Amino acid sequence: MLSEFEVIRKFFSRTPRPGNRVNLGVGDDAALLSVASGHELVAACDMMLVGRHFFADVEPAKLGHKCLAVNLSDMAAMGAVPRWCLLALALPIADEAWLAEFAQGFHDLADRYGVDLVGGDTTRGPYTACVQILGEVPSGTALRRDGARLDDDIWVSGTLGDAALGVAHVRGELKLDTRAALHCLQRLETPQPRVVLGEALRGIAHSAIDVSDGFAADLGHILQRSRAGAEIVFEQLPRSDALIRSRDAHAERVRDAILAGGDDYELCFTAAQSQRATLAELADKLGLRLSRVGRIVAPAAGLVVRDADGRDIALPKTGFDHFAAT
Amino acid sequence: MLSEFEVIRKFFSRTPRPGNRVNLGVGDDAALLSVASGHELVAACDMMLVGRHFFADVEPAKLGHKCLAVNLSDMAAMGAVPRWCLLALALPIADEAWLAEFAQGFHDLADRYGVDLVGGDTTRGPYTACVQILGEVPSGTALRRDGARLDDDIWVSGTLGDAALGVAHVRGELKLDTRAALHCLQRLETPQPRVVLGEALRGIAHSAIDVSDGFAADLGHILQRSRAGAEIVFEQLPRSDALIRSRDAHAERVRDAILAGGDDYELCFTAAQSQRATLAELADKLGLRLSRVGRIVAPAAGLVVRDADGRDIALPKTGFDHFAAT
Repeated sequence: MLSEFEVIRKFFSRTPRPGNRVNLGVGDDAALLSVASGHELVAACDMMLVGRHFFADVEPAKLGHKCLAVNLSDMAAMGAVPRWCLLALALPIADEAWLAEFAQGFHDLADRYGVDLVGGDTTRGPYTACVQILGEVPSGTALRRDGARLDDDIWVSGTLGDAALGVAHVRGELKLDTRAALHCLQRLETPQPRVVLGEALRGIAHSAIDVSDGFAADLGHILQRSRAGAEIVFEQLPRSDALIRSRDAHAERVRDAILAGGDDYELCFTAAQSQRATLAELADKLGLRLSRVGRIVAPAAGLVVRDADGRDIALPKTGFDHFAAT
Repeated sequence: MLSEFEVIRKFFSRTPRPGNRVNLGVGDDAALLSVASGHELVAACDMMLVGRHFFADVEPAKLGHKCLAVNLSDMAAMGAVPRWCLLALALPIADEAWLAEFAQGFHDLADRYGVDLVGGDTTRGPYTACVQILGEVPSGTALRRDGARLDDDIWVSGTLGDAALGVAHVRGELKLDTRAALHCLQRLETPQPRVVLGEALRGIAHSAIDVSDGFAADLGHILQRSRAGAEIVFEQLPRSDALIRSRDAHAERVRDAILAGGDDYELCFTAAQSQRATLAELADKLGLRLSRVGRIVAPAAGLVVRDADGRDIALPKTGFDHFAAT
């Protein structure tokens, strides 16, 4: 059995990237880092628990990917460049094969975005992964929830609802065809954080959030912080082929997944109407779908979602509340 | 039952201190912070799990205190000024009384050291508290594990072994008298991070670490990183009156607690012999015991602990390994 220190040395100690200004990384009481001059530090953390955020039999590489991905998604929502992370990891036993796969999934994603693991904590306990992500943004340019303006377009990247449908499929609450199931599970287990999009939106978007609790709930956070209302056209909310194919058999379920499914890790953002051409070009350049789904209105309207005929759609229980009974 | 967002608003959203340069705190996807010019960012995290790091019936205020204290101790070991923290908290139900007490313990300690809680994550699960601490240190002045020099004195703050004896008492493995038990439990449950000492040691100490895994193991980390050996005089290792009173009944237990107990959250540091008078003055000024316990020798010696007659004392299983069977 590996000791705690062998676990750290073998799986979590790597040479930092020269450009990341890691003055002291893994192996001391804390890491020493230099934030670039003229930049703000951007800090967030997300914790994932077995049985709550992922299934007990999740492949460790996917857990390694996802616990970092959800944190990178927070950097994306701020328009920040992720630089460094810390990982607090609990696991029942120091299983070398499990750790090797977990570390692979984690480091592969970290490498894709140039992020250095600079510290953390390992301990014995039920599988728990808590990542702290640290990034940089030129001072004053971060995307925030509180910047939405009247008549802004509301945009969403990628597609909504896939992960929620994947969860329902695994739980046996509905049956997707094989291709749809594969797609939805991939979206659930290995979400792709929109880091490049987030950075590109600085100076373009007025506000942004990542869709983790469900589209309606997360847009609701923008509206609350920006003191604004929103009108959404349901048919314009982006959905994958998998969801479209599943629509007839599971209409209500698919609608709820799109509006309130959660775990999408797409960006929802608002921008002036004058930015439409710029955003269409950006979508082309990134090879990423960007959908205009509605607009910001006066706060009194609240959040209104309309169907193709202009009728209001009642919102499902909006968003994932970790303390709600489920 | 409170929702996740009500929990955050009610217990964990407070106005940041003006001097801490919190440009955006709790309530967005990430916090925005400005690191002082000419300073390095110092980052660490520690996770505490129920049943592993604390007893299931721990008072919530003490848990709130301790999960922050162990992180502040990492800042102390670096000589850093703690500024900001993030808290990822899992709890089985959103129990308002529990949360109020936990938050009180957490915020009281944060206030003592001027630390702002700027973000985090709350979720449902077995009691788990993961704190990320962020601090600042003037560039190039941090205390590190790798700076010990030949003939340095080795110093320890406070006293060693109290917390370990407290654990043994609670487990019924030995019986302390009432006064000793109170003292040891207080040391176990509400450790006082040596933040002020750590800051004062910049420019004085050559190396430092906080004693969390046990004195021998933590000094061992300094020796390993500094490629050095050490000679320790056991009788000079600082112990409380409670430990001295318990010595006759539990001699071996007390010795192991001092050398390898863990959870002390004192600082172990090395400094040139020319600093003795300065350190005596510092101890007076801070009202904190600083004990000279040995010296740094050539690496070949390893770590040697001698009794009053100059005989080697065999080291107990050195230090707390989270993956060792216990």
